[in-house]
Formats: sequence, structure tokens, C-alpha cells
Amino acid sequence: MKKTDLSTGSKLKIIPLGGLELIGMNITAFEYEDSIIVVDCGLSFPEEDMFGIDLVIPDITYLRENVEKIKAFVITHGHEDHIGALPYVLKEINVPIYATKLTMGIIEHRLEEHGLLGSTKRKVIKHGNAVTFPNFRIEFIRTNHSIVDAAALAIYTPVGVIVHTGDFKVDYTPVFNDAIDLQRFADLGRKGVLAMMCDSTNAERPGFTQSEQTVGRIFDLLFEEHKNTRIIIATFASNVDRVQQIINSAEKFGRKVVVEGRSMVNVIATAMKLDCLKMPANTLIEVEQLKNYPVEKTVIITTGSQGESMAALSRMATDSHRKISIGPKDTVIFSSHPIPGNEKAVTNIINELLMKGADVIFQDVHVSGHACQEEIKLLYSLVQPKYAIPVHGEYKHLKAQAKIVNQLGIDKDDIFILRSGDVLELSENSAKVVGKVPVGTIFVDGLGVGDVGNVVLRDRHTLAEDGILIVVVVMDKRSNTVIAGPDIVSRGFVYVKEADQLMEEARASVGDALYYCEHKNISDWGKIKNVIKDNLGEFVWKKTKRRPMILPIIMEVQV
Amino acid sequence: MKKTDLSTGSKLKIIPLGGLELIGMNITAFEYEDSIIVVDCGLSFPEEDMFGIDLVIPDITYLRENVEKIKAFVITHGHEDHIGALPYVLKEINVPIYATKLTMGIIEHRLEEHGLLGSTKRKVIKHGNAVTFPNFRIEFIRTNHSIVDAAALAIYTPVGVIVHTGDFKVDYTPVFNDAIDLQRFADLGRKGVLAMMCDSTNAERPGFTQSEQTVGRIFDLLFEEHKNTRIIIATFASNVDRVQQIINSAEKFGRKVVVEGRSMVNVIATAMKLDCLKMPANTLIEVEQLKNYPVEKTVIITTGSQGESMAALSRMATDSHRKISIGPKDTVIFSSHPIPGNEKAVTNIINELLMKGADVIFQDVHVSGHACQEEIKLLYSLVQPKYAIPVHGEYKHLKAQAKIVNQLGIDKDDIFILRSGDVLELSENSAKVVGKVPVGTIFVDGLGVGDVGNVVLRDRHTLAEDGILIVVVVMDKRSNTVIAGPDIVSRGFVYVKEADQLMEEARASVGDALYYCEHKNISDWGKIKNVIKDNLGEFVWKKTKRRPMILPIIMEVQV
Repeated sequence: MKKTDLSTGSKLKIIPLGGLELIGMNITAFEYEDSIIVVDCGLSFPEEDMFGIDLVIPDITYLRENVEKIKAFVITHGHEDHIGALPYVLKEINVPIYATKLTMGIIEHRLEEHGLLGSTKRKVIKHGNAVTFPNFRIEFIRTNHSIVDAAALAIYTPVGVIVHTGDFKVDYTPVFNDAIDLQRFADLGRKGVLAMMCDSTNAERPGFTQSEQTVGRIFDLLFEEHKNTRIIIATFASNVDRVQQIINSAEKFGRKVVVEGRSMVNVIATAMKLDCLKMPANTLIEVEQLKNYPVEKTVIITTGSQGESMAALSRMATDSHRKISIGPKDTVIFSSHPIPGNEKAVTNIINELLMKGADVIFQDVHVSGHACQEEIKLLYSLVQPKYAIPVHGEYKHLKAQAKIVNQLGIDKDDIFILRSGDVLELSENSAKVVGKVPVGTIFVDGLGVGDVGNVVLRDRHTLAEDGILIVVVVMDKRSNTVIAGPDIVSRGFVYVKEADQLMEEARASVGDALYYCEHKNISDWGKIKNVIKDNLGEFVWKKTKRRPMILPIIMEVQV
Repeated sequence: MKKTDLSTGSKLKIIPLGGLELIGMNITAFEYEDSIIVVDCGLSFPEEDMFGIDLVIPDITYLRENVEKIKAFVITHGHEDHIGALPYVLKEINVPIYATKLTMGIIEHRLEEHGLLGSTKRKVIKHGNAVTFPNFRIEFIRTNHSIVDAAALAIYTPVGVIVHTGDFKVDYTPVFNDAIDLQRFADLGRKGVLAMMCDSTNAERPGFTQSEQTVGRIFDLLFEEHKNTRIIIATFASNVDRVQQIINSAEKFGRKVVVEGRSMVNVIATAMKLDCLKMPANTLIEVEQLKNYPVEKTVIITTGSQGESMAALSRMATDSHRKISIGPKDTVIFSSHPIPGNEKAVTNIINELLMKGADVIFQDVHVSGHACQEEIKLLYSLVQPKYAIPVHGEYKHLKAQAKIVNQLGIDKDDIFILRSGDVLELSENSAKVVGKVPVGTIFVDGLGVGDVGNVVLRDRHTLAEDGILIVVVVMDKRSNTVIAGPDIVSRGFVYVKEADQLMEEARASVGDALYYCEHKNISDWGKIKNVIKDNLGEFVWKKTKRRPMILPIIMEVQV
């Protein structure tokens, strides 16, 4: 295979290897001469039509081809769409990882699961500190987000400073640690920033995202209002601040706390170990101990706020949780907002919970972790970059940020919405997309990484839509005549007990095909199979207006 | 099969045969002694996990068993979830249909497609008029909704009057025809109403739904703002008033109108024929004529506002529309709001359109067709029913209406949230759920009605998730020995060219199973198949953590 060659002299290249068309897979290469730094390494979750796929990771052909240049993975925060592909990518590209404390704690947990902890170099960086590589120096700047310890990056390069916000919001009164380091962004801006890559997720929303603390006040109100029921709160496993606030309210109202759902238990354990979560003594209990307390003295924090069918809340709602069942003495709070695509799943669970008699609260117990329009304007006004590169979000979000940035006075030609694989080349006074590197998606299905591709997916679609008809014929090798069959077996096509007649006629149509082949002296099995396929396919379409997969199998026997 | 017997003396029975668990399938039987009137006869569209299913219609076992009692179908309005199952149900229950003018026009179009127009008695009823049946008199009352000619029903029965709102909103300034007949609801209330069945769709939303006319003013603004581009507006095919307003704006701004999408063309033709839509002369043109006009002098009204993959807008966005392609000279307006479950599909199309350079407007160009909380309160305050039966919506919506009704002073015991099949029995001063009739869903797949059930759907799920492995073995009938195979063919499992080794080992695992059977003298083919299934299944799970369907086929040959 030809190596992708980008040698064009000493300019900086910014290459998103995921992103736009590959949303969720946040992974960006920064390249200068013989150095590459990779910022983030995320995965995405399968779209609905990716049947059977568990995870989607980026195609890292470009990194593989330039592996000797790569100095580090620099990670902005501990969400799956920024760290999730690390265990897969590290198997090929074993370079050190740099991240803040909690981010690294979450990464380490993931590496441990994949048996990679021992073989991976890691360095925890504090906000305000920087790390130096050939051609690059990278400074971590404190931001706020829906996970503790998020960082923006100031990437010092020979052509200028690039500011990468990561996912961020401006929270003047965060629950844990300090507010975003606006002073530092102002400093950088004063000294001159070449380009800013800024979170666009909420760029369609006017105003300012509310502080995480506002949710804490809502919890207090809800705990006050629902003094006589058990309280179950579903939220994102990684939102440590949210969990902290639930624990605070629980303590205030004298309730014991149970944590349910594997990912939630893991994140909370990591956060407690790293002092990012304060758990008062005698508050946390095991789910088995619930029975020892009156229901109104307990609160359950659980996963499943997105309606995930295997998560704890969904199992509770459908009576398939082994230890917790829902009834009229429950108040269930969704401290979340459905991620696009999950609306229906969430609604279904709400209906289930209501039918079991629970009180369900699902509005306004959540704030976003992303910057709205006024925050985006604030960052741009402080940093004042020459070039704007909206990142993180769908095309419509990036367009929305581009519009805002343009209103702030940055010229349209200086705003770059990069597609996955685009190579943006920057010098001190120029920026231009100069090429494209190979990018794409690799499907993870069970233990298989990359062994399910579009052909397999297409087959799964056909099978899902109308099922399969398998035609088996046994033929004599020498005489080329049918000695058993044709037998037809169907799955996912029609309830066979009610379709005797149809299947009998289908068999006859295969018989016709075989007779035709014999008559025409067609002995090539590939051709025979095609005649069977065409004949049976047409028959089935005419009779049912369905197009099941038709799979002829010829078995050869020497009599 | 035992006939469902509900004879309990002379009381009124209200039996929803669709509804709650069967949302979309609005069909309710009103029964008194030997008369049954059926209100509405809707279908629903398949949930995402109903692979391959085209439509879902109600199980009408109860109606079939009582067919001699049924006097009529009375239809409130022309939406699919109120009329769609008629062509299927009429094949078994051929009784007259009563509906208002446009509703009947739409029904007739559907009947024609199914070849049922000649054999079905139909009577168009005007708002304000009534029709009399044994034990029942049914009056049509004008309401407003997102389709013209919607009606509420006052159902006069020997035990009292039942008011059924149908889907409704209060629009004081509708585009076509008059506002909802609030006077008549007040009249009925003054004389005494036993029960009201009221639309709950928007019962979670505070306030009052805005008038359809407000959208017309927004169209005028948008036409003014986008004078230099073509305008493409996607909306619901059946929203005749919306289409009327687009036409009005088009005329005002001197644009020609093209209508795209089969269902849109059909509804507009029907509405024009019945004088429910005023089309100015020389406004409507064919899509082929677009090229004769400057782009800024045209507007395209199209289907696909819900992101439906086969609809016209989706085909335009993905460059697969034969006559219209999207570019920077287009403004695309979504005059709609995504129905729950469609959010992601709509967003995908918006992104596609933006990437083609179009301007896309997708917020606030729509008003709902359903009553919000203040309208619901208004209706209850006018009608003052003894009993409340919230209808139309998910469980959470019905619960929300129940809450409102309770606040209005109706006792909790007098509010009934009926499940599908519940039999609510009413006398002049009592109401009680006394039993349940059989209900359910029938899947329509292609030409098949009811031949795909849960077994087939389960198979489709298994096939979709991990594909299928087919094992074929040819055995000698007399010696019971393998004379060809085992061969393994897979589909949707793994990209076989990269899995030679795996498939070889899989074949060996089937070989082991066959050897075991021979060794143990297992000659029952069912048992042999099970051993193959277990052995191969375990092997595959261990190697791949996947569970494809495993289908052993044994062919018998007499050598």
C-alpha cells in the first residue's frame, strides 16, 4: 500500500481522524515535521442500523503509517468519545498518555480491563502545567464540563499557539474544584493565538449554560417534596459532580445511598479513590441492605438515564432487576436529557415506571456540560484567534458556531469546518486544507475488531427485513443429477405452520429451476444457484411482496 | 374458541380495542345491548424493533365475534391512526362508514387502493348533524385539528351522553372553516354529560396551542427574508391548512408551487376536489416545469418532514431524487416537529442539506394540532362530565390529563385510564371496569396480514444481531453415516475471507459433534442437530463472543 505522503515543508498540520462524519470519535493529529501529537482517542456507539455492532472505533491507518513520528496521546477529559478507543489503538501505537488526574484514573480502569495497564506509559498533568515534546509544548488549562477534571489545551507550535477547548462550559460556581481558568485564556489571547478549536455541541442554543450547582438546589427541593417515598435518580455514570450533589442532598435529608449499575459503581470508586468525590461516612450502603431501612430513608443512584435496555433503571422498570422493583412508593428522577436518538427509549421507560405507580420527574433536573452561544462568544473574545476551527458536534452545530464566529468579526475564509481526514495546513499567516488522509470506521462486534464490515452489515439488514430461505440440493457428482432435495428451510420469513401451501409452491419453483438447468445442460453450480435464486426470488416477491435472502446450497455426493 | 361473553344487563360498554399499549390504533367499541358502534379504526407504524413490518393493525377478534351487532364505523378525522386499518377491517366487517367530507374523501382514496370502494356504504355527515342507530345517536361537532374537517362526537346512549373529542385543539382563527363549536360543547354540558373522552396528546404542555394562522405569518416573513433562493418546505402531507398557507405566501410573493411526494399529491388533489383547498390559477406547476422559472420564483412543498428515508425530501438530500437536487440556492424549511422516535432521522437530513450548502430552518415554523393544558381545562369546564376518560397518547400523557382533571374537581375514582381491551361499563350513575376482551396487534408485511408473528420477529432479531451459520450434512439413510459435509455457510456473521481459520475450526467442531453422535449411537436426527447446535454455538461464543443463529440441516440420501 502506498504511504500517505504529506511532506510540504515546515508547516503545522491539523488532521481530524474522526469528528464530523465520524461523530464521537474525537481524535486529532497535530503534526509538525517528524513529530505527531494525538489529541483524544474516542469511540462512538453504533447507529441504529449497525445491527449487532457493539462499538465503533476510528480507522488509524494514517497513524499506523506514521507511527515513528507519534510522541503522545494527550487527552482532554474522561468521556468515552474522547478516551474509548485508546485500548484498541494502543495495541498498535504504544506511546505515553498525558491527562489530568481523574481522566487518567478512568483511562487506567479501561486499560486494566484490556490488560494494557502494565505496558502503557502514563503521566498525570496538573491544570496550569505543560509538557514538552519535540516541536510541541502542551499546556493543560482548567475548564468545566459534565465530568470533573476536564482540560482545554494550549498547543505551542513553531508556527503559533493552537487553543483546543475540549468539551467545555463556563461554570463560575462548579461543584468540585475551580471555575474555568478564564484568566489564562485571556493571557493567551493577549500574546496571540493562531487558531482555536472550540466545542460546538450547544452552538445552536442561545444564552449561557447554567451552573451545575443549580441542579443541586433542585435535588434539595425534590427531596423535600418527596419525603415519604424512596427516591431513585438516574444520571450519567461519569457525571461525578451530579452524583456528589445527590449524595449531599441524601446526607442533608438523612437518606442512605445505593449505587446501581456497573459503570456508575466503577466511576464512583475511581472518583472516591482520587478524592474527586466526598462520601460522608455511613452513607453508602449495599443494595442488599436496602431492606434494613424504611424506603423513605433511601436513595438509589443508577445508570440507564438514556433508556439503555440493559442498564439498571431499565431492568427495574421491566421487573427484570433482581434486587429492586418499582412501585407506588417510588419517585424516579431523570437527572439527564435524552441524547438525540434515545428519546423514544427514554419515553418507553417513563411510561413503564408510571404504569407501576411510581411518580416520575423527567424535566428540568439537568444542565448541559457544553457551552451555549454566549459562552462560545466569551471564549472567542478572550482568545481572539486568527483562525476558527469549530469542533465537536454534528455539521449543523459546527455551522452554527461558524455563524457566531463570523458575527464576532472573523472572516468566513478564516473559519474551517473540517471533514474527517482533512489536512489543514497552517503557517504563521496562512491556513488551508491541502489534502486528505484515509479515515473511516472499524466495527467492534464481540471479540472481533474489524471482521464485520459493510458486506456483513448489508446481509444483516436483508436478514432482519425479510429473513432467509435456504435451499439445499444434493447432487451426484458424476451424473450431475439431483439425488435429494430440494429442501427449503426458512427463518424470519413467515410463520411456516400457516404457510404450508406457500412453501410447497416455493419448492415447486425450485424444482422448475432445476428442471430448466438439466434441460439446458447447465452444469456449472454457480449458474444453477443463480437460476434457483432468480426463480424462487421472483416467486416469493409475486406471492408476498417480500425479498428474503435466498441461499442455495448444493451438496456434492459421489454415489 | 370460546366467544367473549359480556352480557350483564342494560349498561353501556366502552371498549378501547387499541389505544394505550397499542398506541396509534385508535379504535373504540361502544356497545349497548345488541348494538355496537365503532369509533375510528386506525393503524400504527412499526416500532424500530419490528424488523420488516410495514404496518400494524388491531386484532379485532372481539368485533369478529360480535359482528352481527355492529352498526357502523364513525370516524372523527382523516389521519392514519384513525382511519388506516379500515381497508383491512372492512374485509371482515362490512358496515357503513360515517364521516365528514374531507375525512370521507381521504377514506375513499384508501378504499379505492384496496378495491373496496364499490362494496362499502358511506355517508358524509355535516358538523352539527347527527345520525341515528339502534340505541345510539351520534352528533358530529366541529373541532380544529392539524387536518381539516375534524369532528368531536356526542354519543347519545340510553344511559347518558358521551362526548368524544377526537384529536382536537381550540383554534379561534383557523385557516379554513370555523372555529371549534364551543357553544355546542357548552350546550351539552348544561344538559348533562355522563363521560368525556378527551385528547391527551399535549396534556404535559402548559398553556394554549397557538393558532394555525401564526404559521402563515411566519411563512410570509421567511418568504420575505429569502427572496433570492428557491424555497422548499417539508410538512405533513395531510395538513391541508399548512399547505394552504404556503400557497397563500407563494401567491403573495409571485412564486410557482410544485408539490412533491405521493401522499402529498394525493391529499392535495382530494382537498382541492372537495373545495377544502383554494389553489389560485397558474400557481401549481409540474416538477418538470421548474427549469422554466428562476429558482427564486419557485417553492416546493414536499413530504419527508419526519426524515422518512423513502420520502421526497430525503431523496433530495441524498442526491437520489431524480428531478430535484439541493444546493446553495435553496432554503429548506421544516414546517413540522419531529414525532418522538424520528429526531435522529430528521437531524441526519438537516446535516445532509447543510452540507450541500442549503440554508435550513427547522425551528418554530410549526404549531401543534393538539390541545394543551388550558384547552383541556376549557373543554372540561364547558362539558362538565361526570366521568373522565383521557384518551389519545402514551400512558404519561393520559396520566398528565388525569392530573389536570383531578385539579378541576373530578374525583380520582371518576377518572378512568383504560388499557386496551378494558371493558368500562357505565350506567346513569356508575362506571366500572368489569372485564377485558382480547386485543392485540396484527403485523402487515408486504402482502401478508398476520403471517409474521413473534416467532418470526424473534428470528429476525437473532439474524440481525449476529447473522446465521448454516451447517449441512448429507447422511446415508441406511447406514446412518455422513457421506458429505459438514459444510458451513454463513451470512451476516463475519467477513469470511478474513476468517478462514475460524471457519475451518468451526467445521472441525461440527465434525466432533458428528463423531460424538456416531460413537454414542445417537441416530435421531433431532438429537444430532441439537448436539451440532450446542457444540458449534459454544465454539463460536468462546471464539467471538457472538451468538449467531445456528441452523443444522441434514439431507438424507439412499446410496
